Amino acid sequence: MNDFELMRELHISGQGKILLLVMDGLGGLPMEAGGPTELEAAHTPNLDALAQDSICGLSVPVGPGITPGSGPGHLALFGYDPLRYEIGRGVLEACGIDFPLQKEDLAARGNFCTVDSEGRIVDRRAGRIPTEKGAELAAMLRQITLPGVEIFVEPVREYRFVLVIRGEGLVDDLTETDPQQLGVPPLPVKALSPQAEATATLVNEWIARARQILADQHPANMVLLRGLSKEPGLPQMGDIYGLRPAAIATYPMYRGVAKLVGMDVLPTGDSIEDEIATLKAHWEEYDFFYFHVKKIDSAGEDGDFARKVSIIEHVDRVLPEMLALKPAVVIVTGDHSTPARLKSHSWHPVPAMLWSSHCRPDEVSQFGERACMRGGLGTFPATDLLPLAMANALRLTKYGA
Amino acid sequence: MNDFELMRELHISGQGKILLLVMDGLGGLPMEAGGPTELEAAHTPNLDALAQDSICGLSVPVGPGITPGSGPGHLALFGYDPLRYEIGRGVLEACGIDFPLQKEDLAARGNFCTVDSEGRIVDRRAGRIPTEKGAELAAMLRQITLPGVEIFVEPVREYRFVLVIRGEGLVDDLTETDPQQLGVPPLPVKALSPQAEATATLVNEWIARARQILADQHPANMVLLRGLSKEPGLPQMGDIYGLRPAAIATYPMYRGVAKLVGMDVLPTGDSIEDEIATLKAHWEEYDFFYFHVKKIDSAGEDGDFARKVSIIEHVDRVLPEMLALKPAVVIVTGDHSTPARLKSHSWHPVPAMLWSSHCRPDEVSQFGERACMRGGLGTFPATDLLPLAMANALRLTKYGA
Repeated sequence: MNDFELMRELHISGQGKILLLVMDGLGGLPMEAGGPTELEAAHTPNLDALAQDSICGLSVPVGPGITPGSGPGHLALFGYDPLRYEIGRGVLEACGIDFPLQKEDLAARGNFCTVDSEGRIVDRRAGRIPTEKGAELAAMLRQITLPGVEIFVEPVREYRFVLVIRGEGLVDDLTETDPQQLGVPPLPVKALSPQAEATATLVNEWIARARQILADQHPANMVLLRGLSKEPGLPQMGDIYGLRPAAIATYPMYRGVAKLVGMDVLPTGDSIEDEIATLKAHWEEYDFFYFHVKKIDSAGEDGDFARKVSIIEHVDRVLPEMLALKPAVVIVTGDHSTPARLKSHSWHPVPAMLWSSHCRPDEVSQFGERACMRGGLGTFPATDLLPLAMANALRLTKYGA
Repeated sequence: MNDFELMRELHISGQGKILLLVMDGLGGLPMEAGGPTELEAAHTPNLDALAQDSICGLSVPVGPGITPGSGPGHLALFGYDPLRYEIGRGVLEACGIDFPLQKEDLAARGNFCTVDSEGRIVDRRAGRIPTEKGAELAAMLRQITLPGVEIFVEPVREYRFVLVIRGEGLVDDLTETDPQQLGVPPLPVKALSPQAEATATLVNEWIARARQILADQHPANMVLLRGLSKEPGLPQMGDIYGLRPAAIATYPMYRGVAKLVGMDVLPTGDSIEDEIATLKAHWEEYDFFYFHVKKIDSAGEDGDFARKVSIIEHVDRVLPEMLALKPAVVIVTGDHSTPARLKSHSWHPVPAMLWSSHCRPDEVSQFGERACMRGGLGTFPATDLLPLAMANALRLTKYGA
C-alpha cells in the first residue's frame, strides 16, 4: 500500500485549514566556518516564536545528497514521491504561463539562442533578449504549420518560450536539442523508442522551419528545445486528501506545479503583500493553501547572503498576518536549500516546522538549520509533511481497529 | 528508480577527491555501565578537530539489530544495498588472494579441520596449522581431477584455503558442509534447486577425494567448505558514480570486496604507514580512495579494549598526513561495530563523520558514539554516505527542473 492509498482511505472531512508556507530555497550554509547560515543570521522573532510551539526538523526533498529542481522539491512537499512522479520541463513551463494544456499535447521549453554562420551555438540565451523581443519572435514562429497538428508558440520571459504541439498519437520519449555547451550546433531531436519516431521527425521539421524564419534575426537566430513532455496525469490532491487546495505564487513554474496536482491557482500580484491579500480574500473558500515566496531562492542563486537574510526577515514581519487567519496547521519550510555560498540549489536538508495546537512541541526555540537538527521531526523525508499536516488538522481517521 | 539509477543519471565530472577512511569494527561499547567506549576512551585530538567541522551521525550498515559481516558492511559503505547485493564467502576469499576468478567459476572457502576416527569434527580449524602447512596440504589436493572441469586449490593463511572449480554450467545454489559444531561429521553439499544437482554431485566427489588424500595427515585430516558461490556481477563504481576508485587495504577480504565493485586495488604493505605511503603515491591518479584499517576490528574480536583504543589513537596520529593531501570530502567511519566487550561484530550503529567545505557542520565536537548520536546525520543508513560524498564533492547535478 503506498502512502496515497492510505491517505485516500483515511481522510475525513474537517474544519481545520492547513497553511503551507514555502520559502523557496530556504536552507543555507555558513559563509565561513563557524558562521551563521542565512536563516540563522536573520532576525526572525515571529518565526522563532512559532518554532517554540512547533515540532521542527530538517526536510529531505528527494534523498541524501540529491539536489532537487523546483518541480521535485515541490512535489515532495505536496506528498508526492518525486522519484515516482516526474513532470517534464516543457509541461511545467506551459502550465506556468497558464497555457491550457490538453492531455495529449506535447510541450517543450524553448530558448532563443545565437548561432554563428556555421550553425554553432555562441550564446545559449541569445544575450537574454528583452521579454518584448521574445514575444515578437514567438509571434513570427506561429506562421509555421505542419500537417495533422496544431502548433502554439508562447513567450515566457526574456529568451524563453513554450512550444506546444497538439495532435493525435504524439509520444514524448525524445531527446533534447540543447547540447548545454557552446561551439557546437544544436542537436537533432532523437526518438528514444520506435513509437516516438514520427514525433521526432515532426519536431525536427518544426526546428528546421524555425531556423529559416529566424535566420536574419540577431542575436536570437535559432532555438533550443528541452524537456519535450506530455502532461503526467498526476493524482489530484483533492482526491488524495479530500482537501480543497489553493495555490498563491507569483512565479509561473510554481503555479504550474500546483495546477498539475489539482490546486486552484489564485490570481495574485508580484509582492508578498499581494500574496497575503490574496490569502485573506480567499481564506474561507479553501482548506489548504500553498503559499510560495520565490525571492529567497533568487537571492541565494545570486550568492547574495544579505539579500537572502533580508527577504527572510520580510517574511517574518508579515507572518503574524497569516497567523491571524487562524489556520489549524502551519508548515514553514522550503522546497530545497539554496545557500548563497553555493549560488545554486543544493542537497542540504531544509529547515521545517509544523505548528498546530495538537503538535507535540520539541525544545527548538529558534528557526534555523542547527536548531532544527535537534528538532522532534529529526531529518525526515519531505513527503512526510502533508500526512502530518492532515493528522494535525484532525483530517485523518484511525488506521485499523 | 533505485539509487544507482539516480547516481548514474546525475553524476558529473569534478575535481574533488573523496577519501573514505574505514576503521574496521570502529563502534564499541562501554566495558561497564557509565564507562566510555573504545573510541570515547581514545585520545583523538585530530579526529575531534575534524568532527568539529563535520556533519556527524551513526551509520547503520544493514538494518536495526542486524550484525553485518565484513562483506555487507563494506558494500553498504560503497552505496550498495547489502540486502540486495550479496557476495558469497567463496568469491570473497578468492578475490582476496588475487585469484583471477572468471565469470562462471564456482568458489568455496575451505577450512582444513580435524575429524576423529568416526569422521566427527573435533577441531573446525585443525589447531590453526601454520600457513606453510596449509600451503603444503593445498598442493596435495591439487592432484584431484574431475571430468569436464578445471580445479584450483589455493592456500589463504593458516587453516584456510580456496577451492575454485572452473567449468560450464556450474550452479551455486548449494548448502555448506560446515555444521558449525563439534562432534558431528561434515555435511554433504546439497542442491537447493534441481539445476544445482550436478554441481552438488561434483563438489561431493571432490570432498570424498580430499578426505582420502588427507586421511593420514594430522591434525588437518579433512576439509569443510562454506560459501560456494559465483562472481555476483556487481554494478561497478566507475559506472555508477563516474569515479576512478582505488582501494588501499592490507587484508585479502577487503581487497576482494573492493575489486568486485570495480576499484583498482593498490599494492601496499602491512602497516598503516605503508598504506599512507600508498595513498600519497597514487593520490593524483584516482578520484576516490577506500582506505581500510583492519586491526581495530581484530582487537575488538580479541576483547582487547586497550589495544583497540591504542590502534584508534594510532589512526588519529596519522590522520593529518591524509588531510594534508587536501581531499574535497573525508568520511571517517567503520563497516560495523566490534565492541571489545562482545568480542565480535555487533549490530550497534557506527560513528561516522563527513567533512567537506560544503557540509553543514553540526554541534558535535568529539568523535565518539554518544556525541555522534546528536549529530546532524542522525542515525542513518550507511548507504547514504556515498551519495552524500558525491554531493559534497560537487559531483552530482540537479534532479529535475
